[in-house]
Amino acid sequence: MKRIKLTVAYDGTNYNGWQVQPTGITIEGILNQTLTQLTKDPVVVIGASRTDSGVHALGNVAVFDTNTKIPPEKLSYALNQRLPEDIVIQHSCEVPADFHPRRCESRKTYEYKILNRTFPLPLNRHDCYFTYRKLDVEKMCRAARYLIGEHDFKSFCSVHTQAESTVRTIYNLTVQKEQDLITIRVTGSGFLYNMVRIIAGTLLQAGTGERRPEQLQDILNARDRAAAGPTAPAHGLTMIGINFLGNI
Amino acid sequence: MKRIKLTVAYDGTNYNGWQVQPTGITIEGILNQTLTQLTKDPVVVIGASRTDSGVHALGNVAVFDTNTKIPPEKLSYALNQRLPEDIVIQHSCEVPADFHPRRCESRKTYEYKILNRTFPLPLNRHDCYFTYRKLDVEKMCRAARYLIGEHDFKSFCSVHTQAESTVRTIYNLTVQKEQDLITIRVTGSGFLYNMVRIIAGTLLQAGTGERRPEQLQDILNARDRAAAGPTAPAHGLTMIGINFLGNI
Repeated sequence: MKRIKLTVAYDGTNYNGWQVQPTGITIEGILNQTLTQLTKDPVVVIGASRTDSGVHALGNVAVFDTNTKIPPEKLSYALNQRLPEDIVIQHSCEVPADFHPRRCESRKTYEYKILNRTFPLPLNRHDCYFTYRKLDVEKMCRAARYLIGEHDFKSFCSVHTQAESTVRTIYNLTVQKEQDLITIRVTGSGFLYNMVRIIAGTLLQAGTGERRPEQLQDILNARDRAAAGPTAPAHGLTMIGINFLGNI
Repeated sequence: MKRIKLTVAYDGTNYNGWQVQPTGITIEGILNQTLTQLTKDPVVVIGASRTDSGVHALGNVAVFDTNTKIPPEKLSYALNQRLPEDIVIQHSCEVPADFHPRRCESRKTYEYKILNRTFPLPLNRHDCYFTYRKLDVEKMCRAARYLIGEHDFKSFCSVHTQAESTVRTIYNLTVQKEQDLITIRVTGSGFLYNMVRIIAGTLLQAGTGERRPEQLQDILNARDRAAAGPTAPAHGLTMIGINFLGNI
């Protein structure tokens, strides 16, 4: 038995998120089904980031155990021949049998993209949140700085969380503008349920002037979901990648 | 009666090209239908670039005549409320009654995008042509230079053309690489049927080494479609914009 790690890119538009649900097609469901067909043994993958419906990925990670004789590095090619065109394995390799992508210390990076112009652009409609409201990027940057470091992010967490602790560390949080496209990029030790989208929704309010950048400190202090901004729409969010600390 | 110019962006994925066809949904067809509904008079638009099925646009141009009382600058807003999300008017204004977007001298710019890496990326699948074959961008640049200027582009024109002359001028043709993405950008006085896609297909051959850059001169001299490379797939092509010379 070998444990295999897959790096998975997907366009989340047509999926009901990562995690298998009673109804709807999910990324995890498609991977289980395709791996089971390929290896002829029932496979259940373990995902690193259980992204919501409509969220995309360049480098999410899934792990599974298999007896297949296909070499680990070739599994990506064999899988891509069978997967739909909106899910593409970017890399496959063997990892130690005890490697678990959610129990292992890691750095996860997400991007939230905002298209800020008079009218939307059709080719960006699935992976950028569009707003015609003028955003002040400098204010968004100033607001973002309050969130860097170790904090209790209870205000930035859906009330539906099952997390025991709401303390997390953000190592890096940047807001950059290139022409009409604003990219919020965040790297952290892990994120609470909806945390990146609530951060994006709150930084959007700083950008429009609805909140002053300094208010981010009060929002953190409140430890109350109602203190932060709205959850920004899912389709602007992309899981960029995960660095596992240690030897993986 | 006013003549109105629309700047139109679209994701061509789900359309049978620009021009109205006996079967299939087209950009022109949707614009005619939406304008007719909005203005309550039959409208037939005149398009600047009749893009093929699967080709996209950021700034194609359509012109039509109307008696509507909606101010020309507000037509974009009124239309966008009625158009599907894969067609978005970027600008609307009044132009002289004799302005014709295909009879007027202009500079058109197109981009052909190539994703060059081991595996495709799902979010780029509709607007980038993917190839895992390693492309040498320096060779593509050298090949491109032969095409700049006024030439008989008969070798770079579909045999199905109805054009009387196959002489065109390319003002600018660049090949640039940013990470895994190669962009061919071309500006010209006008393009023959499939010309940009045949240029892209031939530059791709220069990139893989199937042709030497110097062969582009022989291909031009041949004045024979069979001398050039294949027509690159439509979905990599985007109509970027048009500059009309004069006062438009």
